[in-house]
Order: sequence, then C-alpha cells, then structure tokens
Amino acid sequence: MRKENKTAFCGGIDVGGTKIAGALFTSQGRLTGRVRVPVDKGTAAQPVGQIAGIIRGLEELAAREGGEIRAIGVCVPGIVFEKTGKVWAPNIPGWDNYPLRGRLAALTKTPVILGSDRDAYVLGEQWRGAARGLRDVVFLAVGTGIGAGILSGGRLCRGSRDIAGAVGWFALDPRFKTEYAAMGCFEAEASGASIGRQAREFLRTGAPSSMKGLIRGRLENITAEAVIAAARSGDRLARFILDSAVGYLAMGVANIVSLMNPEMVVLGGGLFQAGDILIRPVKREFKRWAQPIAARQVKIRLSALGENAGLYGAARLAWDAVG
Amino acid sequence: MRKENKTAFCGGIDVGGTKIAGALFTSQGRLTGRVRVPVDKGTAAQPVGQIAGIIRGLEELAAREGGEIRAIGVCVPGIVFEKTGKVWAPNIPGWDNYPLRGRLAALTKTPVILGSDRDAYVLGEQWRGAARGLRDVVFLAVGTGIGAGILSGGRLCRGSRDIAGAVGWFALDPRFKTEYAAMGCFEAEASGASIGRQAREFLRTGAPSSMKGLIRGRLENITAEAVIAAARSGDRLARFILDSAVGYLAMGVANIVSLMNPEMVVLGGGLFQAGDILIRPVKREFKRWAQPIAARQVKIRLSALGENAGLYGAARLAWDAVG
Repeated sequence: MRKENKTAFCGGIDVGGTKIAGALFTSQGRLTGRVRVPVDKGTAAQPVGQIAGIIRGLEELAAREGGEIRAIGVCVPGIVFEKTGKVWAPNIPGWDNYPLRGRLAALTKTPVILGSDRDAYVLGEQWRGAARGLRDVVFLAVGTGIGAGILSGGRLCRGSRDIAGAVGWFALDPRFKTEYAAMGCFEAEASGASIGRQAREFLRTGAPSSMKGLIRGRLENITAEAVIAAARSGDRLARFILDSAVGYLAMGVANIVSLMNPEMVVLGGGLFQAGDILIRPVKREFKRWAQPIAARQVKIRLSALGENAGLYGAARLAWDAVG
Repeated sequence: MRKENKTAFCGGIDVGGTKIAGALFTSQGRLTGRVRVPVDKGTAAQPVGQIAGIIRGLEELAAREGGEIRAIGVCVPGIVFEKTGKVWAPNIPGWDNYPLRGRLAALTKTPVILGSDRDAYVLGEQWRGAARGLRDVVFLAVGTGIGAGILSGGRLCRGSRDIAGAVGWFALDPRFKTEYAAMGCFEAEASGASIGRQAREFLRTGAPSSMKGLIRGRLENITAEAVIAAARSGDRLARFILDSAVGYLAMGVANIVSLMNPEMVVLGGGLFQAGDILIRPVKREFKRWAQPIAARQVKIRLSALGENAGLYGAARLAWDAVG
C-alpha cells in the first residue's frame, strides 16, 4: 500500500539511439537526479539491464528523498505497440518486435509505461516546455530522420497501429526519386542526414565549394553541420542545398498546419539547433502554402526542453497513467 | 420531463450548398422520413427558416410514430466555431461568422448540435457506412473543393480553431503556381472544379481534343464530368489531365496515411462518383509514397452512404451529445 505521507515521484527514462537518460519528476514536473549512460549495444537484453539499473538508482534516490516512485515512463526511438508491449527501434540491435514491457516487468515491480520518443517529445513540451498548457500541438523532430508527435484536443494521436506521425514520408514533390522509396520524400529532401548526403553527392561530381577543404580524405566529414557552417560563411553550394531543404521543411510544416490546425508547431531535433538560419525562412515560407486562417493562428517555436524533451515526456506518460 | 416509454429519435439535417436534407434516426441508425428542399439563398435568415421548418416536420413525424426527438444535429458546408455557435459557409449568402446556433435556439426548443460537413461525413461512415465501428478513419471529400474529416482513437480531430482537415491546402509540389494562393496546391491540382478548369485552359490554347465538340459556344460545358467521359472514350488530353490529378490525389491520400495511420480512408464527394477510372490508380499509386507499414494496413474505400453521409453524421453528432 502506498503511504500518502511520502513524496510521490514518477520516473522518466529516454532511450535514445546512443544514450539512455533517466530522472525523477514530481507531479509538478520538477526534475531531480538526472543520469545518463551510453547505450550498450551488444545484445537486445543489455539496454534492458541498463534501464533496470537506472530504475533501481531512481528508486534509491526517491527513498533518500523520503519519497517513492509510482510509475516509470520509458520512451524508445521507434514504435511502441500498445497492445503487446513490444517495440521496434531500428537503432538498437534486436529491438525488432522486442517484448520490452514484458522484459522490464520481470526486473522491476514499479509499473512501467512505454511510449515512442515522438509522443514523449510533444507531451514533454506541452507539460514543461514551449507548448505549456496547449491542447493542439505538433512536435516536428528533424534530425537524422523526420517524425512528429501529435496532440489533438489534449490527446495523443497514435493511429490505428501506433505509427501515426510518420511525416518523413510526406509526399512533397510529384517528381519521384529512387531514394524516396527507402525513407520517404520529405526525409530524403530535408533531414539532417539527407542534407549531408546531398552535399557529398554534389562534391563527388566536382562542384566548386569551400566545403572541399573539410573532406581531408573522408567524404563523411561533410555532415549537415558542415553544410550549415559553410552556408553561414557564404558558400553558394551550401546555401543552395539549405534553401532546397528549407523549401521542403516549409511545405511539411504547412501540411501539418492545414491538416491538424494546431495552436503550436514545436520544432525539435538536431537540425533545428542550427537556429535562425533555418527557422526564420521556414516560419516565413510555410505561410505561402498552409490554410491561411490556420497559418495566421499557429505559433512556430523552437523546442524549449531540447535534449530533455523525451525525459520530461516519458515522465508525463507515467504521471498520466497513475492519474 | 422525457417519458421513457416513447421511442427516442434524433434528427439529422445536412445543409449543403444547394440543398437542405433532413431525416429522423433511431439510436441504431435507422433512417425515416427523409425530406429535401433547395436552399433559399435570398438572405442569411431564409435557410434558417427552412431548417426550423424541417425540424417542425420531423417533430410532427416523430409524434405520429409515438416518439419524440431528443436532439437535432445540423451540419453545414464550412466551419462551425464550437465556442460561439457561429458558422462560416461560403456558399450560403451572409453565413460569414453567422450566429446559427443562436438563431435556431430562438426557433426551436429541441437541443441543436452543429458540426461541419466534413466531420459529419466521417462520423456517418463510421456509424452506418464503409467504416462501421472503426476508430481511426479519415474521410477525404473531393468535389468542387477538397477537405477531410478525421477520427483518431474514436474522437474527432477538430483542431484549435475548428478548421482541422483543410487538406485542400496540402503542399504537394515545390513549383508554386499563382492559383495555389487562392485555394491551396492540392485543390488547385486535383479538385473537380480544377480538373474542369485545366481542361478549359488547354482547349483555349487550341489543344486538340474530342472535348472541343462539347463546347457549343459555352466553354463552361467542359466540367470534370466531361473530362472523365472523354478520358473513358480514349481522349488523350482528358487522360493527361486525369493522370495528373490522380498523381496528386495519390500523394494527398499518402500524406493522410503517413500522418494519421488510419485503419481506413473513405473517399467521397462528387469526383469519386467517377468510380474505378480514378479510384483504382489512386489505390495503386499512394503506396509508392506513404509510410510502408501504414500503407499496407490501411483500407481505401468509396463512401457507402454517398449523398446521405452528412445526414447520418449530423444525427450521430446529436446522438453523441445526448449520450
């Protein structure tokens, strides 16, 4: 039985492609005891052991603070199948229809609630970030890939098989290219990975650019960050590539705005860390495409929680579950 | 006080751009007493009087059947502002931020629930049509314009200002054309009105086509129906125009599927009455663009209720309101 005089906490654990972070949260969203470890990718079970270890650490911390943990939210970089508790996370070896909820239940008595990272991001921003208190919010994450978390009328839109928000697959150009088949048109044209790839393809053909100096024998040195840096210092090829990506990002934002009529679109993920060089033109150009009333009313904001959005959102999933 | 031994009905009233239809519905969705009148477009108040007249007729019919009406759902071809009860319907003179709920309340004691036609279509199909019992459904209406009604997890997505589903504004081609500014890219490329307009523009330039024989002094004779008929009999220009529209329709369906992960997309509105000449290629081509798992799982179906979808959905709005 829960003792009512103890401080109540929920835990948030954000499993990323490279790191696992965890922290305790009060019902008001105060964060304490943040920890972070690199993902151990030997077997499918190793990250589960790491999560269980973080849970034990959070339980001890809660006890030291005279409290207890009521539930733990865990978000994963992929899909959570709600009914089965299985997950699909392409960046974690063996997490392909992997029974994460069952495995964790065997290792801890604390109730565990699973969610996708996209759902966690939008919930985190709504709870303690840029979209505090809003009911219609979309979080657009643009990094290596592109995805979205959607709140409509205060509720998550998960879709019929928990894969809503796959906006990387937005069709934005009728001139189909072969690379669209693997990742979707929007992601092929505007993700961080694609911006780097586009620059490498141009440089391979001998296109003139200051970026050539960065290669130093490894074409892989040409990343989205390198393209953005070159664009800032006036490189024409880099600007051309970014302009194209901005055009597609504006179209993607517009399509979200026209379909969902959100109060706010929160921009997150690695690419938007570049700041105004991307965000300002996207905010200007999406209005050309979107339903005009919805476009006037929506706010476009950079994520306020940054790399902690998933942590906050995972904890919010747990708090929502315990009521 | 309501007498429990009376048969309970709700009314459904579908206000269209040209006709107003009404009927009684039992809680099981059995329709009786369908009536239909042309919209009287003299003043903003005239259609309100017509709606009130239909409500009186339905009340009398319910009484004759030994029952009573618990609520009336009214759907309108435009936007319903939930908080104020005002409506915006461009095809009805004076219905621009028009206080429809207030006006109707002055004319009938029966509770009236307002909704948009798009919301009614998807609710109707979910209740008694193609999407019976499903929880994640999008109704894509393609006629003169293009719009969508969205159910996610069994609930309507209305958006922050009740204008969600404005998919006619989907950005589907980065090569912006001036006509996109007035109606959106998707609607300019693929609505029934746009298919007719595109054909007229080609014919004006002297393009060879069997459609020339249809003009008979009035270029307006070239409608989407005329283009579809010409395409069926092998006209090359008509086929070219339809192929282009199909390409955009497939992209629009794909974007809905990738974002919302619905169990079903219901195709409705006048254009899809053309049948397989449009529906079959859309069902084939959207898979090239959409998130592959969502694309495999979704069903694409023609509206089962046709012109009655709005009536059923309006009644469903009423039944949902009375619990």
